Amino acid sequence: MTTLGTLGESAVLARVFPRLPAARAQQLGPGDDAAVVAAPDGRFVVTTDMMIHGPDFRLAWSAPFDLGFKAAATNLSDVAAMGAVPTALVVALAAPAETRVDFLEAFADGLRAACDELSPGAGVVGGDLSVSATLTIAVTAFGDLEGRAPVLRSGARPGDVVAVSGTLGLAAEGLRLLFERGVVDGRPDAAAAAELAREHPVPIAAQLRPHPPIADGRAAAIAGATAMLDVSDGLARDASRIADASGVAIDFSGVSAAELAGAEDHGLLACFPPGIPLPGGFRQIGSVLEGTGVLSDGERITGSGWDPYAGWDGGSD
Amino acid sequence: MTTLGTLGESAVLARVFPRLPAARAQQLGPGDDAAVVAAPDGRFVVTTDMMIHGPDFRLAWSAPFDLGFKAAATNLSDVAAMGAVPTALVVALAAPAETRVDFLEAFADGLRAACDELSPGAGVVGGDLSVSATLTIAVTAFGDLEGRAPVLRSGARPGDVVAVSGTLGLAAEGLRLLFERGVVDGRPDAAAAAELAREHPVPIAAQLRPHPPIADGRAAAIAGATAMLDVSDGLARDASRIADASGVAIDFSGVSAAELAGAEDHGLLACFPPGIPLPGGFRQIGSVLEGTGVLSDGERITGSGWDPYAGWDGGSD
Repeated sequence: MTTLGTLGESAVLARVFPRLPAARAQQLGPGDDAAVVAAPDGRFVVTTDMMIHGPDFRLAWSAPFDLGFKAAATNLSDVAAMGAVPTALVVALAAPAETRVDFLEAFADGLRAACDELSPGAGVVGGDLSVSATLTIAVTAFGDLEGRAPVLRSGARPGDVVAVSGTLGLAAEGLRLLFERGVVDGRPDAAAAAELAREHPVPIAAQLRPHPPIADGRAAAIAGATAMLDVSDGLARDASRIADASGVAIDFSGVSAAELAGAEDHGLLACFPPGIPLPGGFRQIGSVLEGTGVLSDGERITGSGWDPYAGWDGGSD
Repeated sequence: MTTLGTLGESAVLARVFPRLPAARAQQLGPGDDAAVVAAPDGRFVVTTDMMIHGPDFRLAWSAPFDLGFKAAATNLSDVAAMGAVPTALVVALAAPAETRVDFLEAFADGLRAACDELSPGAGVVGGDLSVSATLTIAVTAFGDLEGRAPVLRSGARPGDVVAVSGTLGLAAEGLRLLFERGVVDGRPDAAAAAELAREHPVPIAAQLRPHPPIADGRAAAIAGATAMLDVSDGLARDASRIADASGVAIDFSGVSAAELAGAEDHGLLACFPPGIPLPGGFRQIGSVLEGTGVLSDGERITGSGWDPYAGWDGGSD
């Protein structure tokens, strides 16, 4: 069995590199001390995020392909939420020495599939490979604003339309199913998860292999979005961030409790001036009002400091 | 005792953010989905590197300030090795829930000190904070080429002068001392390491808190360096990378075996056309010849596939 420990870093990288997605913006790729990436408008957008075995994923549930796909998708989504076009990623991975090289190959395939499907032209320009007792994935992603101002969380104005693109509550539904029925004797179980994925393919895929609407970030910026973010911690909680940053209230209409609470959808929540056609996959789910906080059909659902997910990281079982 | 687990991510970040170094190139900093960084010449240099508790450092030996300092310094050095000026960093840290907040504050102070001392103007523009069983630090660093071509490993030509800036062998000497005399009953020991640091401050500091000559990267590029890299795996091994990439031989003159072997100095090894004044702290230590591989005073010290550090990661005890 060929493992990270027996093969060594250079040989592993020689097998993994050819599988990685190429970045159109890459001017100099892996192999030197650093890469060089184009930033045509003289700025670049950057975001970084780690996924840790245990709190963030379970190997019994997530295939290595899924991990690569999700690591890329969630970071691409943060770039899209600024109204930028993703250009490149760097990926650092730390894994136990006994990790098989085909695990890393499948992980690279997942990175490639996510870039190809969600944001063609974006690719991996560099990375790092280390040994660790805890499988850890750190992705940093870059984007091009194409001359536009970034879309912040602070620009929403009373009268704006509140709209979302992407799924709502599905990823959380998938996680709930996995915790309830993807375990055997209290431990995450691969066979049980595979059976669940056959029965409930949509929510399980939304959790393990999310497909955020990356191109809608750029579309929203061009359409004039006044505020936008990636819905990672749940619609209500993320909406409160726009409300706080913009000094407004957000009132959702006809959105269910599960849709308001569900984390990890990685859709885009945006505010638009009234009366304009909503771009891409955006559909209206509320309005911006004078005031503070978040409401649902006029009922206040958040107070000062309200935080229904404090301490919930998807990792308690 | 205030820990990461009891205080929660937002409260921890509120205490850590004010201690982070500001980046002159920052156009939008932490607090949104992504940061925005200036890239004045329409490109940016990017490198990423992880440090893992166990293989890469021991908490009994490294104070949190040291970890922050070294994490920044080693990444800044990779940027400098391209001939670029470091502009910004993003820093992801994953730590056990029982980690004290003052650990993170001291880590942030180390990041700040490294940027202020080694590369004024560079700073932290974003990051991520996670819980993990294994303390893990992932830094991604950016640089500005100021309109110049990057200095690669592949440009050395026969006749060039081989020069180095920074320490040689000191960091490895510090690590040897720590493994020999910084342990009690076979385990890394804080008191023994503190005593060692009093007796041998220079090599211990070179290992735990390296001060690579960051500004000399830009100086080398301006002076016309034909090839350059960061000396992280030892002078001989890193020189073989320039030799291989450039299709030349490198012959060192009057360099000791310890200087040829010592890893983690994070100095800069560069080749310059003959007859030009060497910039900054560079001093000549050899010449580029026709041929292949690495020699010391005319004696070949590397063959094909020679790799004296295979499997040595500083972490076996």
